[in-house]
Amino acid sequence: MTSVTPVKEALSVNQAPVPETAGSPTAVPTGSWRITAVDTYDIRFPTSRELDGSDAMNPDPDYSAAYVVLRTDAEDGAEGHGFTFTIGRGNDVQVAAIEALRPHLVGRPVDTLCADPGSVSRDLTGDSQLRWLGPEKGVMHMAIGAVVNAVWDLAAKRARKPLWQLLADAEPAWLAGQVDYRYIADALSPAEALALLERGREGAPQRAELLRATGYPGYTTSPGWLGYSDEKLTRLARQAVADGFRQIKLKVGADLNDDIRRCRAARAAVGPDVRIAIDANQRWNVDEAIEWTRALAEFDPYWIEEPTSPDDVLGHAAIRKAVTPVKVATGEHVQNRIIFKQLLQAGAIDVLQLDAARVGGVNENLAILLLAAKYGVPVCPHAGGVGLCELVQHLSMFDYVALSGTTEDRVIEYVDHLHQHFIDPVRIEQGRYAVPTAPGFSAQMRRESIDAYRYPDGTFWAADAAGKEAKA
Amino acid sequence: MTSVTPVKEALSVNQAPVPETAGSPTAVPTGSWRITAVDTYDIRFPTSRELDGSDAMNPDPDYSAAYVVLRTDAEDGAEGHGFTFTIGRGNDVQVAAIEALRPHLVGRPVDTLCADPGSVSRDLTGDSQLRWLGPEKGVMHMAIGAVVNAVWDLAAKRARKPLWQLLADAEPAWLAGQVDYRYIADALSPAEALALLERGREGAPQRAELLRATGYPGYTTSPGWLGYSDEKLTRLARQAVADGFRQIKLKVGADLNDDIRRCRAARAAVGPDVRIAIDANQRWNVDEAIEWTRALAEFDPYWIEEPTSPDDVLGHAAIRKAVTPVKVATGEHVQNRIIFKQLLQAGAIDVLQLDAARVGGVNENLAILLLAAKYGVPVCPHAGGVGLCELVQHLSMFDYVALSGTTEDRVIEYVDHLHQHFIDPVRIEQGRYAVPTAPGFSAQMRRESIDAYRYPDGTFWAADAAGKEAKA
Repeated sequence: MTSVTPVKEALSVNQAPVPETAGSPTAVPTGSWRITAVDTYDIRFPTSRELDGSDAMNPDPDYSAAYVVLRTDAEDGAEGHGFTFTIGRGNDVQVAAIEALRPHLVGRPVDTLCADPGSVSRDLTGDSQLRWLGPEKGVMHMAIGAVVNAVWDLAAKRARKPLWQLLADAEPAWLAGQVDYRYIADALSPAEALALLERGREGAPQRAELLRATGYPGYTTSPGWLGYSDEKLTRLARQAVADGFRQIKLKVGADLNDDIRRCRAARAAVGPDVRIAIDANQRWNVDEAIEWTRALAEFDPYWIEEPTSPDDVLGHAAIRKAVTPVKVATGEHVQNRIIFKQLLQAGAIDVLQLDAARVGGVNENLAILLLAAKYGVPVCPHAGGVGLCELVQHLSMFDYVALSGTTEDRVIEYVDHLHQHFIDPVRIEQGRYAVPTAPGFSAQMRRESIDAYRYPDGTFWAADAAGKEAKA
Repeated sequence: MTSVTPVKEALSVNQAPVPETAGSPTAVPTGSWRITAVDTYDIRFPTSRELDGSDAMNPDPDYSAAYVVLRTDAEDGAEGHGFTFTIGRGNDVQVAAIEALRPHLVGRPVDTLCADPGSVSRDLTGDSQLRWLGPEKGVMHMAIGAVVNAVWDLAAKRARKPLWQLLADAEPAWLAGQVDYRYIADALSPAEALALLERGREGAPQRAELLRATGYPGYTTSPGWLGYSDEKLTRLARQAVADGFRQIKLKVGADLNDDIRRCRAARAAVGPDVRIAIDANQRWNVDEAIEWTRALAEFDPYWIEEPTSPDDVLGHAAIRKAVTPVKVATGEHVQNRIIFKQLLQAGAIDVLQLDAARVGGVNENLAILLLAAKYGVPVCPHAGGVGLCELVQHLSMFDYVALSGTTEDRVIEYVDHLHQHFIDPVRIEQGRYAVPTAPGFSAQMRRESIDAYRYPDGTFWAADAAGKEAKA
């Protein structure tokens, strides 16, 4: 059939800019090393037992990670680590999705991979058969995000830089070439992206120095889980202020009278000058979101987070219009750059909460940071979970040093869970994220944690099952 | 911790209307039968070898189904069959997602399940841990759709009616109670849904009689696959008209000059009075969609389908404004009712193309049909693939008989592939879908097809692998 060739040729003309390796921070091919294996792990922590992480939609999360290691035969034994965060059941499905990507990875040369992570990102999102399972959303897209983040971890380790610094040091033209403009070109052209990145370079060394000295502002959700008593909330809120935080967050949305009581207690605990964000975790319809937020307005909430479905661009726009001056924030469940584009186009959000492990990895998050910069909307990333603080600090720090150039009204979420399982955990000092200095994306979990919490056969879960059996 | 109970209680107050079994077409509990097993199958057909199904984004699909059978111990051995359509790689991930739902299903009483399929739909979409993998989108949501459709297949078999008739015969109050209004209540209230369904009842018996006599109009995509030669396109287009179709569809979007040539050939083949839809399968950015569609306007295309990302509500609105009088159609990849709601709210589409196996099953498609009826937008379902024609005819026929009450400007897609694998295949007569009469959702595949095309160990694939080995 003569038509085979034209179709395939046409498809090879990708609408994204031609990938550039010129200017890559890891561009020089130095060896013939390859990806030799893609190891996956289903890691689950039993967090539901203490109601850590409980909110109006997620009463009993078991914080989990579908974890991937790209192994190589590089002379230094370098590996790329990445993961997707889930909250328990279904983590095995997420692992299966990562495994479906293995054929795209094994055998790839390490140096060309690190010189152009965008090429992996494009190949994975462009696999037409796998694309059918999204496109670019849900389980398959999160799997791609885990793998793409692992590639960036590997690239940063090979460049011997923390990821934020690799990004901040990169040539603007190379960075702009790492973004897939498909479906966002009406809001952000490659030329606009390049101009934003070039503008971001001005003063970057000074900002990097300041960042190293003072860190990046954080806020804490630890006091506000819905499952906590008022006493615990008050105690933890006071502690947060004593620890230097200037913003805390409370979960709301299950019961209005409870929320009024809890917001009053929190405001009393922190005083008038510390910001209190409230978070409904998608609990409401549009009308409910408006009524409920207005009912809590007397406690001066700084933002209302996830008032409704993350898919509802027009709903968020309606809510924002109705609840001002309370700001509207969303993003942790926003599936990709295309929804973020529309949230910005529609004026639907005041605060963009990107997530390091929900979308297609660093490349897509570059697109989202660029969109936010273009529209002048501050990025306050979602974190917590398993290792999300570790990842997302790199994106915010890059944004400050070499893109938006400011931390004004920007804070990274902080939750004090599970950091001990990472070899390069975040460090919080006076309510601020200290700059990570180890090479990589801070994504690597301790081997002993993997061995203990691998589900269902890690030492913790095996002992747990044996204990249950003994009781029965 | 005293706060545990309030949280869980609050969560049990579902915002959807209280499920009603009153008025259920299968309401009378007659036994203690239960779901005893959930069997899954990874079924793949080697369609890529003939370029059947090739388009600008999907050059080589292997049409596949992640297939589920709900087995019961009912006295008549009744089973519920359902599936999700995929195009090859990743079908195993989709199967894994269905298997993650098994604990919600095994042991459920058959009669209460059939009396209120909405209860399963709510339980599955409401599993907070699995919800994290969406929410309500992608792999996990399609898995829920497969299972929910299997429940409806079982319910219709037990009621001894084809599904369209079960729905058309059901009490409006019961049907309205099958819909989850969360996130769509700002566009469709339960009371509005009930009023639409009550209006739909007027004249329903007469329409059912007419439907049985004349069938439901179809259109065919078979001539227009991108991988076909001009000669084949022309021959098949003429054949389509001779077969009684009043609309055909062409794939476009890979190369403009090719598209101009192919549209010219198709228009010459079918004459001025047969509608030609064109389908870009998400190939374009917004600006490209506008330019390309205008460049093909001289051939009088009836609609442009999937001009850009299915996630881009505002993009579709901009395209529609620019390309009128060419209509804008999308839906086969629209993830859920929330995006459809916005497409309607924003005036972004002229034609709503629901898919029977992309969203959360019959319950969510009821919501989508109701939204379309409220906004007065015609529904022209996506079909083809594996078994999608078989499923979707039931939804359109219900819509005609007991909701919208019209077939004006409504057509069901028809593709003449793979029907032989179903025990109750669609029948097309003079370009129209004949009414299915067998009890159920027409979802059941032949046992010998499952045995042959189960991947990788069915007889076809095993022989294929052996043949490749012999050649090598």
